[in-house]
Amino acid sequence: MMHTGPCQRYVFAGPRAGAMLRFGPTVVKGVVDSFIHLTNARGSAFNCLLRGRIAKHLEGISSHVPESSVSTIGFIGGTGPEGRGLAVRFAAAGHNVVIGSRDASRAVEAADEVKIILSEVSDAADVRGALNADAASASDIVFIVVPYAGMMRSLEQLSSSLAGKICVNVISPLSFAGGIPAAAPPEIGSAAEEAAQYTPDLRWVAGLHTLSARDLLKPTSSLDTDAIICGDDDDAKLTVSALLSEVPGLRPVDAGSLQSARYLEGATALLININKRYKSHASLTIAGLNVG
Amino acid sequence: MMHTGPCQRYVFAGPRAGAMLRFGPTVVKGVVDSFIHLTNARGSAFNCLLRGRIAKHLEGISSHVPESSVSTIGFIGGTGPEGRGLAVRFAAAGHNVVIGSRDASRAVEAADEVKIILSEVSDAADVRGALNADAASASDIVFIVVPYAGMMRSLEQLSSSLAGKICVNVISPLSFAGGIPAAAPPEIGSAAEEAAQYTPDLRWVAGLHTLSARDLLKPTSSLDTDAIICGDDDDAKLTVSALLSEVPGLRPVDAGSLQSARYLEGATALLININKRYKSHASLTIAGLNVG
Repeated sequence: MMHTGPCQRYVFAGPRAGAMLRFGPTVVKGVVDSFIHLTNARGSAFNCLLRGRIAKHLEGISSHVPESSVSTIGFIGGTGPEGRGLAVRFAAAGHNVVIGSRDASRAVEAADEVKIILSEVSDAADVRGALNADAASASDIVFIVVPYAGMMRSLEQLSSSLAGKICVNVISPLSFAGGIPAAAPPEIGSAAEEAAQYTPDLRWVAGLHTLSARDLLKPTSSLDTDAIICGDDDDAKLTVSALLSEVPGLRPVDAGSLQSARYLEGATALLININKRYKSHASLTIAGLNVG
Repeated sequence: MMHTGPCQRYVFAGPRAGAMLRFGPTVVKGVVDSFIHLTNARGSAFNCLLRGRIAKHLEGISSHVPESSVSTIGFIGGTGPEGRGLAVRFAAAGHNVVIGSRDASRAVEAADEVKIILSEVSDAADVRGALNADAASASDIVFIVVPYAGMMRSLEQLSSSLAGKICVNVISPLSFAGGIPAAAPPEIGSAAEEAAQYTPDLRWVAGLHTLSARDLLKPTSSLDTDAIICGDDDDAKLTVSALLSEVPGLRPVDAGSLQSARYLEGATALLININKRYKSHASLTIAGLNVG
């Protein structure tokens, strides 16, 4: 987990959503709606929306020297552009990254590509390739970026090493029948709900479907877009939001319960249709959000 | 239809999409990818993406004095905030508007509200209330903004007066079971596809689901958002895009075939979840679109 001085923290970037801080054994919950500047584990500044009791407690710790401990972020099936793109951004923000694959040599190859991209960035954290099982057990937060066809098999194999961990489902089931990119959701409504039903002991968050992998892979440019996430575990969303806030130009947006994954997975098909027509690499943003 | 000098025109704001112009009996089709300034029927400037043969033809007509003829825009079930909001914007752009309702007095009341809002705007066109059947027969382009529960009954009653006309389906079927706003699409996938299957002789476009009605109702502020539309009738999309381009700060985005309405209707549920959480009136925009 991320640390700032003696405090383990979970900060959520949504207004009026509960924010939680841990000071050793003490847990402080509060309401969130004004900005405060913090530094992350690597000393980079980022903004959080805070007020009241939490802001007061943070004033008390803001002069502490950050520890060097950082969280490790894992990717299951992370050799594709989405996995590599997110790996670039999280490593640039100072988190160690493990890119997982069923094939160890492909994982190492993808990690090497990410390291070449990160040569533009000073102070990037470590990136390594590994088998999916190693990535799962070595990581604090795990992103599931396998193709939908492999999702259930991956969960079957990895559920015990993922149990209790925050898992972010980035999968969009798609079909291309008749040349038209279309959402092809499972009966339950979304891949995210299907995964959560199958492995309820994982701490599921879904999101990041609508980011441009090409933009993620350019570590020195600001993304200027939104990372829309959803889930039923508020604390897990807080942690993921804090992580996403560390990526320059990426604003986490909380779209509610895990059921909202239906619309985010559908939005992937929408964006593919738009990108096909405009020959672009567009992403989805929310205009007029009431923050700050 | 809209006229500029002697030319009836259909201009589409998407890059590389076909654009079509009519000069009396002559139809010119071409490829679109650079900007040109035009004036609409009321003389307001707006941008279109044009090149090649079309741009050349437009140079020839750009000095013509605009005619005073304007198209009439109708709203079926237009007394709610979406209908009134769009009515405000189209009347402000110089198009006569007919707000339809099953109840003539409610339609007149809604039209009066719109006229009060339009008192801030100079040169707004006429707005009147009428029965849905009158709105359908009096209008060149018709927006269907009834609640989903009334959609099929409205189409049954109005299909003969709507036949051959461009109809824009703005309906999102929703449920609020368990307090969670959710998309509740019909078996076929979307309300838009269901409507088009039932009335294939209407020229269907779907879109505008993800605009903020509250923002539409403020005629003097720029919207700064995207009007995402889709449909299988390219010429109908061209006409609707040209109309939308006349609203300040509104960028039409073509999301492909009518099937994409599934994702736009779903995005309504996504936005309601986000707005509930952030107490906002947000809309959806596409970042990184390759235009201009």
